[in-house]
Amino acid sequence: MAKLTGKWATEVYKDTAFSFKIKKKLYGKRSKYQMVEIFETEKHGNLMTLDGCYMVTEREEFVYHDMLAHIPLFAHPNPKNVLVIGGGDGGTVREIMKHKGVKVIDFVEIDEDVYTVSKKYFPALVKGLEQDKRVRFLFGDGIKFVKEAKNKYDVILVDSTDPSDISGGLFSSEFFKDVYGALKSDGIMVMQSEDPFYDGHIISNVQGRLKKLFKQVHLYLAFVPIYPSGCWSFSYASKKYDPREIRNKHSKIKKFNYYTPELQKAAFSLPQFVKELLK
Amino acid sequence: MAKLTGKWATEVYKDTAFSFKIKKKLYGKRSKYQMVEIFETEKHGNLMTLDGCYMVTEREEFVYHDMLAHIPLFAHPNPKNVLVIGGGDGGTVREIMKHKGVKVIDFVEIDEDVYTVSKKYFPALVKGLEQDKRVRFLFGDGIKFVKEAKNKYDVILVDSTDPSDISGGLFSSEFFKDVYGALKSDGIMVMQSEDPFYDGHIISNVQGRLKKLFKQVHLYLAFVPIYPSGCWSFSYASKKYDPREIRNKHSKIKKFNYYTPELQKAAFSLPQFVKELLK
Repeated sequence: MAKLTGKWATEVYKDTAFSFKIKKKLYGKRSKYQMVEIFETEKHGNLMTLDGCYMVTEREEFVYHDMLAHIPLFAHPNPKNVLVIGGGDGGTVREIMKHKGVKVIDFVEIDEDVYTVSKKYFPALVKGLEQDKRVRFLFGDGIKFVKEAKNKYDVILVDSTDPSDISGGLFSSEFFKDVYGALKSDGIMVMQSEDPFYDGHIISNVQGRLKKLFKQVHLYLAFVPIYPSGCWSFSYASKKYDPREIRNKHSKIKKFNYYTPELQKAAFSLPQFVKELLK
Repeated sequence: MAKLTGKWATEVYKDTAFSFKIKKKLYGKRSKYQMVEIFETEKHGNLMTLDGCYMVTEREEFVYHDMLAHIPLFAHPNPKNVLVIGGGDGGTVREIMKHKGVKVIDFVEIDEDVYTVSKKYFPALVKGLEQDKRVRFLFGDGIKFVKEAKNKYDVILVDSTDPSDISGGLFSSEFFKDVYGALKSDGIMVMQSEDPFYDGHIISNVQGRLKKLFKQVHLYLAFVPIYPSGCWSFSYASKKYDPREIRNKHSKIKKFNYYTPELQKAAFSLPQFVKELLK
């Protein structure tokens, strides 16, 4: 078998490891919350890691951001107030901005350093964010923020890291109750919920907790090559709307990179072993 | 970033590498055609590599075999004669055997050593193959075999390695013409056709070549964590049938691992960047 010779960045995940050949390390500094590193890869553009876990590559970031933002924003008939928890690299806010009907995007990232670093090394992800008056930069603790918001948002997106000391609370029943309270009566939340091949128990737990609160709870998948297994899940919960229908006629978006109107339904057609995680 | 310490098996693919932590190497020998190696991994069961490329792990093999076999076998109303080119590990033939209406499975693998090794290290993949009288073991050159077959098969499955000196011919227009000739007037072929993230040009070429011959040409995807990018494509071609409909009522299969009836349609709903490869 091959040996890794030369310069590689590697994420070890359980008994697997995924590596990118790199030209050089561009940045490495511990923020108040986590180790933030940036590498220039050979063919995937810049790569950001947080505590050694891959967050984004320039080449593949479109998948995750398209699928996190557009599925809920098209399921809702007229989303105006949107909250993003996490997503410090800016890519999720950038996708929400494409929806013309959205009036307010509250952007609550706990680690301001992630955004600052992204401005320098991932210019395409933060493009236009500071010029768009709809975006409110509210650096701080998303868990506290949501606890204080009541009946305020049409859509809440939770764009977190893997469950950890910092982000573990974003996977808890208590947080989900607060999200429920922060949403309007027809509100929608979507959160990243890990992969079904190696972390099926996280999906089962998240879906189970959401089902105790929300009328509509569903799971959808997308191909994210830089995350463990390459199969990424998103948990969808709404007080009212089944996600497999496009209701929003206000967002005139001409061009997507990953999302398509057919995926609004098809992304929810799960492989058998994933369906079994939801029982 | 992490360094790989201890024992790992690694596949380097372009500027990426994917590794499994291993307990030990179980087998390594050059066959007439390629280097065949078997590793016992920590949590993914046994792993087979051919010329350093991952072929199967016991834990994940169900995805590829389910999706290669069941999509075409349910699109055809009554498949009786089936040909498998390659697929030496036995998993594809095993899935075809589940279809009760199938009468003959011609199994043409060029490298008999792959099958012999699979019998020893992947017992679940070859289970029942030699006891099933429908399976004809025809070790030899699939390209030659197909050239000599005329108007004979309902379904042909091409279960090959990445295009290489041995398998490159299985991606050529000449081979596709021979497949066309070997199929009955309503025949179907499916072949693995690499991944859209790193090898989009292969998908474009294969689809373009098939479209010159077949009336129905489509692409579908599945999550295969052990192959580059984790997003794997299958090219479908038929003289008659659109694949997004279940026509076969003869195959009474109670339980799948990955395939579901909804995926018969949904697996063909492609992300935007993949749709663009087919233009």
